[in-house]
Amino acid sequence: MQKIGILGGGQLGMMFIQNALSYPVEIHVLDPSPEASCAPIAHRFVVGDFNDYDTVMRFAQEVDIVGIEIEHVNLQAMKDLKAMGKKVIPDPDVLEIIQDKGLQKEFYLQHNIPTAPMKNEDDFPVVQKLHKGGYDGKGVKILTEKNRLEKFDEASVFEELADIALELAVIVARNEQGETAIYPVVEQVFNPTYNLLDYLLTPARIDEETAKRAQEIALKVVNAFQSPGIFAVELFLNKDGEIWVNETAPRVHNSGHSTIEAAYCSQFDMMLRVLMNYPLGSTQLKCKSAMLNIIGAENQWGEAEPGGLDALLGVPGAAIHWYAKKITQPGRKMGHATFVGDNFEWIISQIEQVRDALKSIEKKV
Amino acid sequence: MQKIGILGGGQLGMMFIQNALSYPVEIHVLDPSPEASCAPIAHRFVVGDFNDYDTVMRFAQEVDIVGIEIEHVNLQAMKDLKAMGKKVIPDPDVLEIIQDKGLQKEFYLQHNIPTAPMKNEDDFPVVQKLHKGGYDGKGVKILTEKNRLEKFDEASVFEELADIALELAVIVARNEQGETAIYPVVEQVFNPTYNLLDYLLTPARIDEETAKRAQEIALKVVNAFQSPGIFAVELFLNKDGEIWVNETAPRVHNSGHSTIEAAYCSQFDMMLRVLMNYPLGSTQLKCKSAMLNIIGAENQWGEAEPGGLDALLGVPGAAIHWYAKKITQPGRKMGHATFVGDNFEWIISQIEQVRDALKSIEKKV
Repeated sequence: MQKIGILGGGQLGMMFIQNALSYPVEIHVLDPSPEASCAPIAHRFVVGDFNDYDTVMRFAQEVDIVGIEIEHVNLQAMKDLKAMGKKVIPDPDVLEIIQDKGLQKEFYLQHNIPTAPMKNEDDFPVVQKLHKGGYDGKGVKILTEKNRLEKFDEASVFEELADIALELAVIVARNEQGETAIYPVVEQVFNPTYNLLDYLLTPARIDEETAKRAQEIALKVVNAFQSPGIFAVELFLNKDGEIWVNETAPRVHNSGHSTIEAAYCSQFDMMLRVLMNYPLGSTQLKCKSAMLNIIGAENQWGEAEPGGLDALLGVPGAAIHWYAKKITQPGRKMGHATFVGDNFEWIISQIEQVRDALKSIEKKV
Repeated sequence: MQKIGILGGGQLGMMFIQNALSYPVEIHVLDPSPEASCAPIAHRFVVGDFNDYDTVMRFAQEVDIVGIEIEHVNLQAMKDLKAMGKKVIPDPDVLEIIQDKGLQKEFYLQHNIPTAPMKNEDDFPVVQKLHKGGYDGKGVKILTEKNRLEKFDEASVFEELADIALELAVIVARNEQGETAIYPVVEQVFNPTYNLLDYLLTPARIDEETAKRAQEIALKVVNAFQSPGIFAVELFLNKDGEIWVNETAPRVHNSGHSTIEAAYCSQFDMMLRVLMNYPLGSTQLKCKSAMLNIIGAENQWGEAEPGGLDALLGVPGAAIHWYAKKITQPGRKMGHATFVGDNFEWIISQIEQVRDALKSIEKKV
């Protein structure tokens, strides 16, 4: 049986395994936390640091294929494994570019991929992105005259602030033969009061021409990388109609979660197909969908349980994905909920009914 | 965290766990085989006989809720657990009826549920069904003048041979409050050459009135049982238009597998909702679907792998569920494939293309 090794054992790995169990494959996982979401279900779970060269090399010895569910892994190990003839997906050269926002920006510019132009760091307003270590919105700051003293000290990219109409994302799969499969465009809906991500809708409520353009840009990014893998390309649709690539994740992504319920082939199934070099799946949708993250509530730090679960499960077509993280922390992603249906009006009305209750809370004793 | 204990650790339990991992629950499994499909993924897997009173009692001590994925479990243990206040689903009284085809037949007759009339055992042709131990088509025989000497010796029901137009199945869920959810009717398509089950289609290609009647009969069966659980009611649609109940399984069932891909709430998710007393899910379909069992090929007895997997995965919307059974045996259910789409003509044309290759074979070394 083929053995797939995944670097990272969080929720992405967990959802990957839930699906991969339907195939004749064995899944090995490396994660520093013995309480990682993948720990109870991986065929082999190794506690160790995926940023440590020796740990990754040792872990990979026992598998046939190395994949990732987080991009911040030891790059040299990935390169050496590839050089030794191990199948490593995505290509380590792509990881190197994506791990560094400076290289990533250069890459887009070199390949004529539309992206926010670079800018002088004192030409406010300006967006500062740390070259290294940014993750999940961290390491990014909008600098103005007013807050300019908050500038990060570390090496950074400075770019123009996009005048955003909508934030979009497109997931693209590419296999070893260079064949690709493109998912429908995802729309990120922000809460106007708090300017926080509220929920995701698939397919995005944009006209066909714009959707096609977004997909073409995402495809251009992935083809430029020339690497097999699953890629989530995050895009800004600007108010003037232009589309800019914000950044790319070389892995399954939060914005693709509703493909589990709504697409013929989920992003997790697609990842397995890419790793195993099975035929790519169909990205066609069965229905419309929304995805809502379940976040740790304020001031709650204990053993976690989902608040509002009964309300959620009372919604026809709603599903929960609870990530099996032991401890709830304010703002921590603890799970997500998917809503499916034929029209967004109804789907959004259902979200409204459960959104306030649906959060991760401390377990009542 | 609530602990669910499942008696039986085969593919039904495995698919149950794959979904249950998305919830804040812990799954314990009891099965005699250390190589059972559930073994690598249950939170706790106990090797032991679910037909043994003491083994079941000991296993159940550590869980809050006891469920089944096979109906042939120790009945006295289930009764005593219920008497001790443990939540046991389905009700042991229902298990008692279903474990005995004689009691099951009486039950249908008592509750005015249409079923094949009982018949004198020498009034050929006649269908003989063993009271006990029948499973998956075993323990049932059609007796004629010609083969009458092949009659089983054990206690049996003798009933009229149905003049079958179609074999149908309806899955019904019932919760502790007596609320029910009914899935669309499933049609079993037989291979005309071999008269073997070929594939299942959902929804059945029957008129609305017949579908409604089938669902009403299935609901009547389940309401008569007055027990929470998931029930698969197998039906004959006779050539004269009458519908007869053949038998009922008090658990998730082969005929419900395509709900994973095609229904808002799969039968496995529904089972979890019933066990946890969460709101029942929606049985609405997202698309049409077909399900094909993957069977052990003739003369192959070694370590198993699926033949034809690449062809299957090349079909848009096709999915595999490989049951992680180590050894392939002729006729053994080793997995299944689901096909989804908008119309059956296309779906069936896709099945035709992969059917011959899609079987469990010995791994090539």
